[in-house]
Amino acid sequence: MDRKRLIHLIKERQSYLSVGLDTDKDRIPTFLLDKEDPIFEFNKAIIDATRDVCVAYKPNLAFYECYGAEGWKSFEKTVEYIGKDHFIIADAKRGDIGNTSTRYAKAFFENIAADGLTVAPYMGEDSVKPFLLQDGQWVILLALTSNPGSADFQNIKSDGGEPLYVSVIKKAIQWASDEQLMFVVGATHPEQLAEIRKLVPNYFFLIPGVGAQGGDLRSVSKSAINADIGMIVNSSRSIIYASDGEDFAAKARQKAIELQSEMAHILKDNSII
Amino acid sequence: MDRKRLIHLIKERQSYLSVGLDTDKDRIPTFLLDKEDPIFEFNKAIIDATRDVCVAYKPNLAFYECYGAEGWKSFEKTVEYIGKDHFIIADAKRGDIGNTSTRYAKAFFENIAADGLTVAPYMGEDSVKPFLLQDGQWVILLALTSNPGSADFQNIKSDGGEPLYVSVIKKAIQWASDEQLMFVVGATHPEQLAEIRKLVPNYFFLIPGVGAQGGDLRSVSKSAINADIGMIVNSSRSIIYASDGEDFAAKARQKAIELQSEMAHILKDNSII
Repeated sequence: MDRKRLIHLIKERQSYLSVGLDTDKDRIPTFLLDKEDPIFEFNKAIIDATRDVCVAYKPNLAFYECYGAEGWKSFEKTVEYIGKDHFIIADAKRGDIGNTSTRYAKAFFENIAADGLTVAPYMGEDSVKPFLLQDGQWVILLALTSNPGSADFQNIKSDGGEPLYVSVIKKAIQWASDEQLMFVVGATHPEQLAEIRKLVPNYFFLIPGVGAQGGDLRSVSKSAINADIGMIVNSSRSIIYASDGEDFAAKARQKAIELQSEMAHILKDNSII
Repeated sequence: MDRKRLIHLIKERQSYLSVGLDTDKDRIPTFLLDKEDPIFEFNKAIIDATRDVCVAYKPNLAFYECYGAEGWKSFEKTVEYIGKDHFIIADAKRGDIGNTSTRYAKAFFENIAADGLTVAPYMGEDSVKPFLLQDGQWVILLALTSNPGSADFQNIKSDGGEPLYVSVIKKAIQWASDEQLMFVVGATHPEQLAEIRKLVPNYFFLIPGVGAQGGDLRSVSKSAINADIGMIVNSSRSIIYASDGEDFAAKARQKAIELQSEMAHILKDNSII
């Protein structure tokens, strides 16, 4: 999905919400466990309940891989079921030597029709470039992540005085334009978000960490917004596990609408819609 | 596999060789493509031909994932076929927030009985710790990788004067002992290998990059060796693609034996066997 269409969908749905499909058999309603493919059944219900209020879905591969080949099938079916009207983020945090990254690119952009793939920067340029195939197939590069461990290495200051995540961003924008590259910046760092926005005014951010991880939608939006919105904000657990009863999909919809309504306000306040 | 048994196997087979199973349908002998599971058939033949001269196998997940659920099945079958007498490295370079890394740990250490998993350090402590389940299940943490892009971030010097890969190593040894943690250090950096060996005298290294990537076995061994050997040296393409004819397994064996014979010399020269 190209940048233009992503922005169009955000305006149309008055939403920059991504629903994270971190689907865990230990947390989904127990009555689903009798179904042939409980993970897919759960995702299907969540997708049906949230389609009109979000622009993206973000299945995290760990939750599928942990069920082996069967889990991969659930993942593939989920991507297919989402279809073409949402931006699909394969949250896989891949990255390897060039020869190998080429294979991961094939996995996620050819066999699975993902729109974006999260990529880890540690191995540098030749581990990232094989994913840059064409506009509309996005590398979503880890910059400053939402977890406590982000402080361990991402904040290390170089002898030039800049933290590692800034070095990552500065290098990466030499590799790809804002039609192909986004950055992961956690909702738990609103101050740094504002600094990063100054550094890369036009790049989209994928912002995880709103909800269960404690990030606040209004403050991150204020820090990250640009003239094109410039962000997709993800929430996983606080939406999909809003209830573990028969009403799980309805409750997920309710949570998604709460976020979407606030997003609509923010978009209007910033004269974007 | 615990440290003691790994060292025992190295001495017994006079080998610290890992055979990398980067099995690519575009490169395996064409006559195998008619089989029901060409990737598994190829791996099976390579494993049968090299079992007695190596201590480890390292399937890289990218080469399996790129065939989706079917590829995962080939991976699972391969791990099962290798069995318990080799150290199995799932080369997946995973790493995510704690909640998610726990799922990856389940994927590779419970469902798949891998002995070690390569992990990317960028997200810090809570992304690595969930993989540290028990002795004999190893985190193999990226420190200084073999590819050209390793220079982009891993070599950035902090304001304290140490390169990022040194910071990674220093932090990580606070998280896990040498019974559970190894480091990836590429064969393409023999000088830094020697420095890293001084920093962590007892930790094992996984050393990729001998063969197709240009690393030299004798010089890396000289830099990395300790009293327990302290390393597993991996070669992938130069072994498994030694021939694309009917004789591919025999030629792979020949290449593996070339490396193993040199290893036996090195082990003897260093009075380890």
